[in-house]
Amino acid sequence: MNDTRKKPTYEEISQRTGLSPATISRVLNHTANVSDATREKVFGAVASMGFDVSRMSKAKEHKSALLLLNIPSFNNPFYARIIDGAQDSATRNGYSLLVSENALDNPEHVADFLSLVDKTKAAGVIFTNTLPLETLLKIDHVVPVVQCCECREDCNVPFVTIDDMTAARSAVDHLISLGKRKIAFINGPLTYKYARDRLNGYRSALLAASLPVDVEWIIQLGEINYDMALSAAYQMLNSGDRPDGFFTSSDVFAAAVIKATKRAGLRVPEDVAVVGFDNIEISSMCTPSITTVSQPRYQMGLLSCDLLCERICSASLPLKNMYLETELIVRESTTRSIKGTAFR
Amino acid sequence: MNDTRKKPTYEEISQRTGLSPATISRVLNHTANVSDATREKVFGAVASMGFDVSRMSKAKEHKSALLLLNIPSFNNPFYARIIDGAQDSATRNGYSLLVSENALDNPEHVADFLSLVDKTKAAGVIFTNTLPLETLLKIDHVVPVVQCCECREDCNVPFVTIDDMTAARSAVDHLISLGKRKIAFINGPLTYKYARDRLNGYRSALLAASLPVDVEWIIQLGEINYDMALSAAYQMLNSGDRPDGFFTSSDVFAAAVIKATKRAGLRVPEDVAVVGFDNIEISSMCTPSITTVSQPRYQMGLLSCDLLCERICSASLPLKNMYLETELIVRESTTRSIKGTAFR
Repeated sequence: MNDTRKKPTYEEISQRTGLSPATISRVLNHTANVSDATREKVFGAVASMGFDVSRMSKAKEHKSALLLLNIPSFNNPFYARIIDGAQDSATRNGYSLLVSENALDNPEHVADFLSLVDKTKAAGVIFTNTLPLETLLKIDHVVPVVQCCECREDCNVPFVTIDDMTAARSAVDHLISLGKRKIAFINGPLTYKYARDRLNGYRSALLAASLPVDVEWIIQLGEINYDMALSAAYQMLNSGDRPDGFFTSSDVFAAAVIKATKRAGLRVPEDVAVVGFDNIEISSMCTPSITTVSQPRYQMGLLSCDLLCERICSASLPLKNMYLETELIVRESTTRSIKGTAFR
Repeated sequence: MNDTRKKPTYEEISQRTGLSPATISRVLNHTANVSDATREKVFGAVASMGFDVSRMSKAKEHKSALLLLNIPSFNNPFYARIIDGAQDSATRNGYSLLVSENALDNPEHVADFLSLVDKTKAAGVIFTNTLPLETLLKIDHVVPVVQCCECREDCNVPFVTIDDMTAARSAVDHLISLGKRKIAFINGPLTYKYARDRLNGYRSALLAASLPVDVEWIIQLGEINYDMALSAAYQMLNSGDRPDGFFTSSDVFAAAVIKATKRAGLRVPEDVAVVGFDNIEISSMCTPSITTVSQPRYQMGLLSCDLLCERICSASLPLKNMYLETELIVRESTTRSIKGTAFR
């Protein structure tokens, strides 16, 4: 076999095998599971073109390369499992993963980040931030980017996320099914896609049940902050016409609502039922434990990084976005534990 | 002023000013607060030696350099504030900080880490891991290292930590002062210095109060895991001779003990009082809120990174270790809220 022969392109292998260039990239770079039949087809074609298949993998060339995962803040426990998933994918794909904390909310932060990409010679970047379109495209122009969780759907930068609107709606539907009629919502900043979509989901559930949407029962907080949520919930629960249910955009907020309800001398879930979001550890640590929407956080991290490795290996990869399934996990904050029923 | 003149060494400036080389490093590299008088003395000496003081700072030369902070796991919420502190120090000192997750518990992981240092050309490393002496020295030979929180005190690698034994003793003394006599201890793996020292503190508090040390009431868990602690505590609380107090090496364990106590039909703190460790967010989120030992986590991160920047700028820096103060924060898990008393 002649090792100096020109390396066949994905397009040439595609023509020979009838497989898409993306599939060929997956086979040659081990970035996703493919069937043995597909692998044999690609390896066969490469060999028949007189080339050593072991020299085809770009992942191998990048063996020493770094990937960056940027998060807005280490203080939100939401990100830990995402990092774990991305780390596992990076290792499997032959990269090292480093995590940076950068809010990317002003030009100086963006410049710092671009300088970091330059210094580390990062091969790719995963963002979990909400970013202005211009910033996102600017960075994607320099280095391949994949968006994870929080994302802009209106551009050509691939993302792995959930359907926040449907998830929020299922959470509020659950409260309505328990007979709750006065359902408040504690949300994060509307600069985030997740916050806008969950607000839409909350509204649409209320409207579908012919319940009024009362703006005084919608609290937008500036950040995922326990104390701010505690104070807002306590105030609502001490007003004349108090809510009998809360949907919150974070388990941190839900924990605060539970604390506020107890402080107000009310019971969870009898007087006030609570549904959180994320299924982070505190949702099972709290008493009562918190009913919540579970996001597949590990999986989101893993698939974002798989997708990033694919993009790095194949510049011509068609745009690929993923919406992963969420699950409503019913715990004590909405339903009294019944003997014989297992609550997670 | 002749810019091509040879840069004076710290030792030369030291001889001229009577200040130590470490102080001179601090002045020239802005790595710590120094008095105006000291700064003027150093600047004056440098100028009198015919050199431009602005060219003395090594931090400036390193402006583009990276620092690595390695943590064993993102899933322990303990590390978030440490990272924040280190990040702020890094920025102030003109470095970028990146966070890696590596257990460093086998030769392959150590090799991965060394390769990461090489790839990123990291100027320095902060470890929060427990490391074999040989590994620590091996890495410190390649790049300046500072140990943060968890550390080996038996070598020449500087550290910033707390006095775990005294802190543990104050926690157990608090339980004893409340009339608790049967105090159990849930601890992390004894491979960690913190776990060994807290065990010693627990023992010494019991012995000082002439209380027996019962090995059956000492639980060593393999990791900071909520479910494992829940199951261990539940089992102890359902045994014939149950504890009336728990000291735990983590707030995560304390939250599990509270859940187990409620499941066993007992009250916190009347039947079972609980003291945790770390003062992470869940300690105030839980109901009852958790009495805990507050570690100055942000400060530990900040000072570790300050110290690292000093080491980078001055290879001859004398070994400097710091033990920071802890504080027992009394909350509802040991003392019923009394009207008029503020509980944090």
